[in-house]
Amino acid sequence: MTLDQKKWNTVCDKAREAMLLQTVADTLEWDERTGMPRGGGDYRADQVSYLRAMVHRIRTEPAHGEMLQQLSEQVGELDPQDDLAATVRGLRRNFMRDHRLPEALVERIARATVKGQQCWDAARRADDFSLFRDSLSEVVELKREVGQRIAEGSEKSPYETLLDEYEPDARVESLQTMFNDLRGPLVQLIEQIREAPQQPDRSLLQRDYSVAAQREFSRFVASAIGFDFDRGRLDETSHPFCTTLGPSDCRILTRYDARWLPSGLLGTMHEAGHGMYEQGLRREWFGLPPGSYCSLGIHESQSRLWENQVGRSRSFWSWAFDHAKKAFAPTLDNVTANGLHFAINQVQPSLIRVEADEATYNLHIIIRFDLEQRLIDGTLLVDDLPDAWNLAYERDLGIRPPSDANGVLQDVHWSAGLIGYFPTYTIGNLASAQLFDAAAAELGDLDLAFARGDFLPLQQWLREKIHRRGQCESGESLVQNATGRPLSADSLVAYLRNKLGNLYRFEMP
Amino acid sequence: MTLDQKKWNTVCDKAREAMLLQTVADTLEWDERTGMPRGGGDYRADQVSYLRAMVHRIRTEPAHGEMLQQLSEQVGELDPQDDLAATVRGLRRNFMRDHRLPEALVERIARATVKGQQCWDAARRADDFSLFRDSLSEVVELKREVGQRIAEGSEKSPYETLLDEYEPDARVESLQTMFNDLRGPLVQLIEQIREAPQQPDRSLLQRDYSVAAQREFSRFVASAIGFDFDRGRLDETSHPFCTTLGPSDCRILTRYDARWLPSGLLGTMHEAGHGMYEQGLRREWFGLPPGSYCSLGIHESQSRLWENQVGRSRSFWSWAFDHAKKAFAPTLDNVTANGLHFAINQVQPSLIRVEADEATYNLHIIIRFDLEQRLIDGTLLVDDLPDAWNLAYERDLGIRPPSDANGVLQDVHWSAGLIGYFPTYTIGNLASAQLFDAAAAELGDLDLAFARGDFLPLQQWLREKIHRRGQCESGESLVQNATGRPLSADSLVAYLRNKLGNLYRFEMP
Repeated sequence: MTLDQKKWNTVCDKAREAMLLQTVADTLEWDERTGMPRGGGDYRADQVSYLRAMVHRIRTEPAHGEMLQQLSEQVGELDPQDDLAATVRGLRRNFMRDHRLPEALVERIARATVKGQQCWDAARRADDFSLFRDSLSEVVELKREVGQRIAEGSEKSPYETLLDEYEPDARVESLQTMFNDLRGPLVQLIEQIREAPQQPDRSLLQRDYSVAAQREFSRFVASAIGFDFDRGRLDETSHPFCTTLGPSDCRILTRYDARWLPSGLLGTMHEAGHGMYEQGLRREWFGLPPGSYCSLGIHESQSRLWENQVGRSRSFWSWAFDHAKKAFAPTLDNVTANGLHFAINQVQPSLIRVEADEATYNLHIIIRFDLEQRLIDGTLLVDDLPDAWNLAYERDLGIRPPSDANGVLQDVHWSAGLIGYFPTYTIGNLASAQLFDAAAAELGDLDLAFARGDFLPLQQWLREKIHRRGQCESGESLVQNATGRPLSADSLVAYLRNKLGNLYRFEMP
Repeated sequence: MTLDQKKWNTVCDKAREAMLLQTVADTLEWDERTGMPRGGGDYRADQVSYLRAMVHRIRTEPAHGEMLQQLSEQVGELDPQDDLAATVRGLRRNFMRDHRLPEALVERIARATVKGQQCWDAARRADDFSLFRDSLSEVVELKREVGQRIAEGSEKSPYETLLDEYEPDARVESLQTMFNDLRGPLVQLIEQIREAPQQPDRSLLQRDYSVAAQREFSRFVASAIGFDFDRGRLDETSHPFCTTLGPSDCRILTRYDARWLPSGLLGTMHEAGHGMYEQGLRREWFGLPPGSYCSLGIHESQSRLWENQVGRSRSFWSWAFDHAKKAFAPTLDNVTANGLHFAINQVQPSLIRVEADEATYNLHIIIRFDLEQRLIDGTLLVDDLPDAWNLAYERDLGIRPPSDANGVLQDVHWSAGLIGYFPTYTIGNLASAQLFDAAAAELGDLDLAFARGDFLPLQQWLREKIHRRGQCESGESLVQNATGRPLSADSLVAYLRNKLGNLYRFEMP
């Protein structure tokens, strides 16, 4: 292979320039969500949209596309997992998506989703879906057009191309199969738990957990599990997230509730999981595909693994409990590590996805995955969405939302144009369990390590198998290579049956 | 006059675009100084220098200069204080400066001042001027070249054109006269105070002032004197400053010392004074000269007025003392308002400018003003600077720095290329006293208002006379129009004699 060095340098420089401006815009948005003065909003919107438009212009320059086309032929003989091949493939993939979308459409979507989020917010407050109806219809139509334009000439459906933006190369049919394999066992498990002889004492988690103490304890735990505070920071916001502002500047955000321990602590572990993935990417490839996260599903696998497989494990609490007791004294004085661990693993069907436990969470996702496919292919009308939502909740979770605010209006995603995004949450859950199984099989007794506060072997295993691979492989291939088998529901089902069966003391099949 | 509307719109849009990018860069620098992770520095420097270069390119486009030239002729018949005239004049003034500097020189200065600050920092830590010598020489040479290029064909000296960047239209000769008028009375005053019968108890300020309590109290005071927290915020940093990130987003920063009350509290009032100036500029002119601060001297007059004429006044403490007593209980239990007020006004010659009291502060500035002129005109060599510094301190303040770290190496300014900047501090001090006199004469008994916590009349007077005028007048003209006479040392001298004479109980001449 002879790679045209000049073209290679040009496309890499352009991609890095776009990333530099994107991270500038992301810094402004981080600031907006961590305490920007109220009055700053309008001007901040001007600044961010100016920068985003610049990024789009740089990324869709026709000359850029031509060079990528030529380089693409030149790297054809390389191993597709090679950094050079991955770079050209990833940049070309993004260019091919972006450049099929006329600027006018991109602008209409930007406006429609800003308006969509405002209408959604108003509708949720007023508990009145009709206030959201028109703007959701507009968003659905625009995203359908995006899907159609990108799908043109390919074998994919419009919905599948939307999904592809978040989870490259994922296919609807195989997700459908996996999700079906998961749904049955989950419904059965929830049924067994409902009738189980042993139930946890949830009130342990609703005691006095001062925000100041939570702040300190969360920071301590994030640092202990491996989040690097020299290359990141932890802040507070109303809707937690993780954002990367440079190769050594990853910001995670959480929120604390002084009468509810899990949201702050497990929320921090969740975001720290995202953050450690970002911190584990290869710095020298920052802004290019080999140094970028693979997919949202893989990203979520990292956050869920640290939140659930670690943060909700008995061995983690063998180490953490004494620290927690000291941090929150005297709140935990008459509590045992077993009691706290059981409470943190309570399973209880509920209406709100973000508050759902590990067993019911994926049922929330499967419902959304089904509904959003039907919205895009036109078999479900926006007018019929609330009824369809409520029916699905009654069928799958056994509870019917008393109002749309607690039902179809609970998530911001669709209003923001994020259609095809929800399934990545369940992909992440499946992958987290399967990756953890493989790590435990390779590394020996992880529980022993956790019980003495040693999380480094697990972090290093993930770094090697996942983080450092960037976009050199697809998510599917990463999981296959790290675990020796294709992604499936098996690990998650076995993990939940085992842990919850022990806690609730029901017969396992 | 017929103003070419299209050209007018173009130059205004360009100026606003440059400001938008400048405020983006300023936001990144604010973030850098308020908790950016250590690892983020390198990439942050890339982001900021990319943005600064864009701003420079936009501001020096030749077409921009031509349009400004044409508009300049068109607004010739307008009142020079008219917004349109001020806009064209201000933008043209900046263009004429910037465009005389070849990009290569701008880049060399950027590199030399980054290196300069690093060498300065190392030299200060090691207390070794020789580590700073070479890079200071380079900065001085480059700034001399800047001064020469801009001065070419004008009646100004190179130093005067450097000063002009910070204090437009200020002349060295008239500053020299004012500073001489100030120096004699200050030296006499300090002598009288040294021998005064009454001395304050400084230890009152060195008690236990918890940072948490200071944080809350400083915020309370900033809000009470008029800083608008809906359009600004207060944070902490190692080197306090004020920065404006948008028309309704002004950030002020302070630092707290748990065993020293004045730095946090009076520092906050100082920065709030800067902030209220920025908040008082006309928002509709943001990014254009009528909505921009007039000069650094005028800016400093606003900060010093709230720090000194208000924050060090007896009537302010009539109101603030009970609040402070509560905020810091029991620290102030056996202290009186008079005792605290006296301690806060202690005069004591010292080596460090930023810790100096109101009487000695300007002597520090006058020394620097003299030295930096001689560095630029070549009559003082960098090698001879430390000796010249020490001699001047011995002569004017009666103390000789025991080491360069506490002498010539104490300020960052010269290393950062800020030559011509120091005199604006004394201009600000003179103007603050003169403006305060005029406000008191017009508004009646300000002390009565302060004693009941009413600072609004003073703020509104400043808003009308100073803030809303932006760059429609020079600093000199602003002071003349607000106070009815040209800027002089009279008000400051009378104010210090009066206040300090009462406190220290010496005979006034």
